[in-house]
Amino acid sequence: MKLVTYRYEGIRRIGAISGKHVVDLNYAYEELLKSQGYIRAAHIAQAYVPSNMVEFLQGGAESRERAEQAVEFALSNEWGAPIVRSTQEIQLEAPVQNPGKMICVGHNYREHILEMGRGIPEVPVVFAKFSNTIVGPEDPIPFYDVSEQLDYEAEFAFVIGKRARNVSKEHALEYVVGYTIVNDVTYRDIQRRTIQWLQGKTVEGSAPMGPWLVTGDELTNPSGLNIVLTVNEEERQRSNTANLVFPVDYLVEFLSNLMTLEPGDVILTGTPGGVGVAREPQVFLRDGDVVRIEIDQIGALENRVKAINREE
Amino acid sequence: MKLVTYRYEGIRRIGAISGKHVVDLNYAYEELLKSQGYIRAAHIAQAYVPSNMVEFLQGGAESRERAEQAVEFALSNEWGAPIVRSTQEIQLEAPVQNPGKMICVGHNYREHILEMGRGIPEVPVVFAKFSNTIVGPEDPIPFYDVSEQLDYEAEFAFVIGKRARNVSKEHALEYVVGYTIVNDVTYRDIQRRTIQWLQGKTVEGSAPMGPWLVTGDELTNPSGLNIVLTVNEEERQRSNTANLVFPVDYLVEFLSNLMTLEPGDVILTGTPGGVGVAREPQVFLRDGDVVRIEIDQIGALENRVKAINREE
Repeated sequence: MKLVTYRYEGIRRIGAISGKHVVDLNYAYEELLKSQGYIRAAHIAQAYVPSNMVEFLQGGAESRERAEQAVEFALSNEWGAPIVRSTQEIQLEAPVQNPGKMICVGHNYREHILEMGRGIPEVPVVFAKFSNTIVGPEDPIPFYDVSEQLDYEAEFAFVIGKRARNVSKEHALEYVVGYTIVNDVTYRDIQRRTIQWLQGKTVEGSAPMGPWLVTGDELTNPSGLNIVLTVNEEERQRSNTANLVFPVDYLVEFLSNLMTLEPGDVILTGTPGGVGVAREPQVFLRDGDVVRIEIDQIGALENRVKAINREE
Repeated sequence: MKLVTYRYEGIRRIGAISGKHVVDLNYAYEELLKSQGYIRAAHIAQAYVPSNMVEFLQGGAESRERAEQAVEFALSNEWGAPIVRSTQEIQLEAPVQNPGKMICVGHNYREHILEMGRGIPEVPVVFAKFSNTIVGPEDPIPFYDVSEQLDYEAEFAFVIGKRARNVSKEHALEYVVGYTIVNDVTYRDIQRRTIQWLQGKTVEGSAPMGPWLVTGDELTNPSGLNIVLTVNEEERQRSNTANLVFPVDYLVEFLSNLMTLEPGDVILTGTPGGVGVAREPQVFLRDGDVVRIEIDQIGALENRVKAINREE
């Protein structure tokens, strides 16, 4: 499934993309239950297939199976709104709105490590963003006037679908529900003015995410995916997830040996070479720039930079 | 008020400490509403004074005023369980269970900066813990066998009570609902094996918090508070919040200029000199050690270290 969080008339709900349509998972499941004679269909649908992504993911494989049945039911019966809508009617939001954790891996593509003048690390470098950074695939990237060095970082991200603690590499992918794209937007000077990067990484709106979460049954192998970032159609980053020093299964093992990963947690796997700060000459993002990240088997995340002057 | 999260017979709820009693805020408010003739008392109580701390804080000053009335009502009417219980019956948990953000400030007491061999920073160094680290005042500090360098860090922490964005120092304290104690337990070698500290800071269970949240109407000046940490009754850290390089009001301004702070967010203001790794010879925590942090006008947070061998 291509799972989305979408907004229609101001209400945010989750759905699955099918061609030019989005199926509302909660409404569709309620309708399926009604067709089976359940009187408390709305309550059961709310319990198993709630309309918020993190809560839905907490339901695990059982909730996803019910959602799949609901999508099949909705499409085969040609339901209309609010169960099935045209994608033109709705606005796509970041698939995961409120993850408990956003964990980012630094220095994870060989060529990016070299361009930053560093050695290949023996263990992953990890840092955090908070969920205040999340914006959607149709939102602008806000550029606050706290810095003049706004930079992009194309990232292949995975989302946890099952509570994970001390998971081995061999079983790691069972704990990953799917994959998405995140632009790890970075205020470069703020990142570097102290020895810890957090403050330049968690500025409001600095994590455009989307356009959807492609589940692991569709995207079965997270390695071998091309990742390309362009700014105003000019290519700036290009690599392949096969070049990750620490791939997805390694990261699940590594992180879950330190902490419990929860459904909805988003892990950003790092960025390829070609970030603005490492170019010669350096080049940073400007108001109006269009940043597009494309990853095989997922799609494209495209956002326009929008300068925001807080004094105005 | 001294706000607590407490557990009784497996159920976690919030209350206010009054002497040797804890008043359940939600039950007390429901009872007050009933006494005023409200038929939908339970629903109104749930809306304004829910039984989860972050949700209660989201209600802002209005919810806190209603909770204060409820406590007064419960105590003056000598209610019994489940509205009022003896503190002996209940278990105290960390006051804030699931903050959206835990932001830590490094290098914030002058003497700790010097013992770590660093210069006084011009801007705060900030890093993250995630909420998987939170344990309560009656819980052990789990010591996982991922490291042999478990260290303590006594921290004065404040909690956000009102959404804050671009707040000036002058108004900062209006956005702080209260204060508590956090032990920023650190796996020192894991913290230092990469250039970003997160992985050694967010290990499961590494943020004992409590015993309660003292609201800003009781603790009106966050400066001038003695902070002392002992290990097995031996003093290891001693300072005063007057020595903070970046005090509470500065931090609210600084952080809210980068991101939106939300009710329930916990900010740890940094640790004084005397951490184990900086002592000569170095000394780390061991199974059975009792770590106690005392801060004026708040109280004491005391936890015992408990080794956990995952192979057992």
